[in-house]
Amino acid sequence: MTTTDTAVAEAVLQTQIQHFYAAQMQLLDSGKAEDWAGTFTEDGVFAANAHPEPAAGRAVIAAAARKATDEYAAAGIQRRHWLGMVNVERRGPDEVFAQCYALVIETPRGGQARLHVSTRCDDLLVRAEGRWQVKDRQVYRDDLS
Amino acid sequence: MTTTDTAVAEAVLQTQIQHFYAAQMQLLDSGKAEDWAGTFTEDGVFAANAHPEPAAGRAVIAAAARKATDEYAAAGIQRRHWLGMVNVERRGPDEVFAQCYALVIETPRGGQARLHVSTRCDDLLVRAEGRWQVKDRQVYRDDLS
Amino acid sequence: MTTTDTAVAEAVLQTQIQHFYAAQMQLLDSGKAEDWAGTFTEDGVFAANAHPEPAAGRAVIAAAARKATDEYAAAGIQRRHWLGMVNVERRGPDEVFAQCYALVIETPRGGQARLHVSTRCDDLLVRAEGRWQVKDRQVYRDDLS
Repeated sequence: MTTTDTAVAEAVLQTQIQHFYAAQMQLLDSGKAEDWAGTFTEDGVFAANAHPEPAAGRAVIAAAARKATDEYAAAGIQRRHWLGMVNVERRGPDEVFAQCYALVIETPRGGQARLHVSTRCDDLLVRAEGRWQVKDRQVYRDDLS
Repeated sequence: MTTTDTAVAEAVLQTQIQHFYAAQMQLLDSGKAEDWAGTFTEDGVFAANAHPEPAAGRAVIAAAARKATDEYAAAGIQRRHWLGMVNVERRGPDEVFAQCYALVIETPRGGQARLHVSTRCDDLLVRAEGRWQVKDRQVYRDDLS
Repeated sequence: MTTTDTAVAEAVLQTQIQHFYAAQMQLLDSGKAEDWAGTFTEDGVFAANAHPEPAAGRAVIAAAARKATDEYAAAGIQRRHWLGMVNVERRGPDEVFAQCYALVIETPRGGQARLHVSTRCDDLLVRAEGRWQVKDRQVYRDDLS
């Protein structure tokens, strides 16, 4: 059984991005909004068809995430972001384009879990300082597409 | 930290199948019914306990997928197929049996995302022309099992 | 394109744990309660914030799983446990701490699939007898957290 170096490199890349998504979204869902923003590049962009304007730069992304996090906490709602069906395309040694699906599951304290929204997510990821970071994220809610 | 060649080969295989599923189902969900059918072998079979007859052969699979795709588009519904919990078993150098779960999430334009069905999916996959292809897919809807 | 041995080892580990979860939960969902309990160590612990007491030891875990499995079968409900967003952290050559999300999807025979609960799962996994096993699992239902 032989496995080519290219096949190994592709599998490692695919797995790293999956792992990155798991760690990244666990930060947001556990309320660490600023740490989550730190998974974007300093000049990173977060855009969504549900938002009037993109958030540009870590500080702006962090402030928006903090606001939403605090509102959910005040409402007693636990969010879970599931990113899956990840399709990774290498653009360069340290650059990747990844398309995935994302679900947001919400559970009110003492209440019933529910599927909030289904979305598609397009990410431009770059490797800097030895770790993957989001340079550009575009989220498309299925109900608005 | 040593990693055996066998462990690497198994991980590469598992990751390739996950990647295949992501790319495959993104084709269908984005309306590329014919490209999706092209991820089956020329003589591929798609069977489901929700269908009276299996679809046999790429052309038949493509026609059925095109019909469903057009109906969903006309109804303004975005489908998302989530394949996960993928359990890959190597059958030969170029043959794999994979068991996974599949959810279908549907979102009407301007409406609420909902879980349509939960299913189990049994795939016989073969590698031909340098890429994985489905030779036989059996889908079991949980409500009909 | 070079891939370091460390990067390969990390990807192999991440993939092994994902594969373990897929195989493990397919056992439970297909009613093989005793085989599922066999994926815990002999002294394994299964604790959940929805249960008054942890189940300690394979025999106790098996008995609890058998009881639940039989109740679901009698009620005609197919369960599907989806574990995802897996974040693996190596603790040693044969020890891993993994944090993931878990959804339970339920479908009554002839009925509508529904999201039963959303949870977070913390696992201590050890490799013994050449396979990964759960030494300690803590499940936190989002509605009770």
